[in-house]
Amino acid sequence: MKQNNVLYQHGTLALLVPGLLAGTITMKELLQHGDTGIGTGEGLNGELIILDGVPYQADSFGNVHVVKDDFTMPFANINFAAFKFLTTLENAGPEEFAAAALRGKTNANTFFAVRVKGRFSYVRTRAVVKSEPPFDTLEETAKKQSIFEAHDVEGTLLSYYSPTLFHGAAVAGFHNHFLTNDHSMGGHVLDFKLASGELAIQTFDTLEQHLPVNNSEFMEHDFSQDNVADVISKAE
Amino acid sequence: MKQNNVLYQHGTLALLVPGLLAGTITMKELLQHGDTGIGTGEGLNGELIILDGVPYQADSFGNVHVVKDDFTMPFANINFAAFKFLTTLENAGPEEFAAAALRGKTNANTFFAVRVKGRFSYVRTRAVVKSEPPFDTLEETAKKQSIFEAHDVEGTLLSYYSPTLFHGAAVAGFHNHFLTNDHSMGGHVLDFKLASGELAIQTFDTLEQHLPVNNSEFMEHDFSQDNVADVISKAE
Repeated sequence: MKQNNVLYQHGTLALLVPGLLAGTITMKELLQHGDTGIGTGEGLNGELIILDGVPYQADSFGNVHVVKDDFTMPFANINFAAFKFLTTLENAGPEEFAAAALRGKTNANTFFAVRVKGRFSYVRTRAVVKSEPPFDTLEETAKKQSIFEAHDVEGTLLSYYSPTLFHGAAVAGFHNHFLTNDHSMGGHVLDFKLASGELAIQTFDTLEQHLPVNNSEFMEHDFSQDNVADVISKAE
Repeated sequence: MKQNNVLYQHGTLALLVPGLLAGTITMKELLQHGDTGIGTGEGLNGELIILDGVPYQADSFGNVHVVKDDFTMPFANINFAAFKFLTTLENAGPEEFAAAALRGKTNANTFFAVRVKGRFSYVRTRAVVKSEPPFDTLEETAKKQSIFEAHDVEGTLLSYYSPTLFHGAAVAGFHNHFLTNDHSMGGHVLDFKLASGELAIQTFDTLEQHLPVNNSEFMEHDFSQDNVADVISKAE
């Protein structure tokens, strides 16, 4: 059953911190839980954005691919799209975007997704270089990343908002990925300026948090020495 | 479909901290997600334990009732029971219980439930006195509680374990409720000594976290001034 009140999350951002980067869900499995989402591949292999059921990977070489069913991920968010138009935006950067999505508040107490379609005068993204086992920590792995910039492009920004209480499981606040309409450029969004576009929102009442219980490295890991909250805030 | 890999949680412990104690799910709705669970009523009205699909409330007067379908709760955990026998225990207090359930480890990275059936030489429980709107904070409300003790009773201890990462959403570690077999005594467990009994465990790979998004007080509340983690650790 396609439930549009549910945000499905596989893994946690916390498990990336000590370098638990093994792929623990396949794209085929993930797509059973939605048609719209974000994530990263095994070894932080690129930045994923799923739109209309198609999973795109922006890699560290600046290429965008459609990934296959057997592509695996340590972390992903996905939902069945049922966005509702909220507002149009012009000349909007991250602050104006956040103010619009939060309707002027500074934070929210539930999970929601935001989709912005429009013309972006500027977008800056990053994609991490895939690392191989034995995996290094998130902090070390994330140092090896490529930065991409695009000017005057049509595209979609897909964002997931998580309440502060769930920082560690997710990133508190907004987590934004991007893809141009021509699929030439995308990634994890570091900065942007929307020239004009439409912002639509989908509020969830349920987080379906799936954990990789069959991964012994995850199950046996002692997280007490990982400075999870700070590392996530810095790396994301 | 009855999924025995899912722990369903309505509300968070964090929302109890500032006194968001309104009942936001009915027992009828909750029981669609399981047959085994714990929780509390609106205004922290007693301590709930659900066994074999029957919801029992231990109230602050020392009575145990079966509650009706329209009974509402701000917080509850529930699952479809599929416990597996792990070990027998003798002369076991909270420490021996925890060591057995964690198989000698000090913590775990996923959610699980533990059910202990047996003869308890001693059980000490508490049940909070129901408060009325406008609700006070958890810290103030929890001061008005009754303590109950029982010696040499047959009963069931039902415990939910949450990983440290989710402290605030739940209580990190074990959260234990109890009911005697004759339904004469129960509540939130403060201390116990199991004379002899059987410990069974059910590990979940999914937390289905449901939030009361239709409750405007919850949605509008600013949690940034609530000292959520510390208050939960003290009160629970």
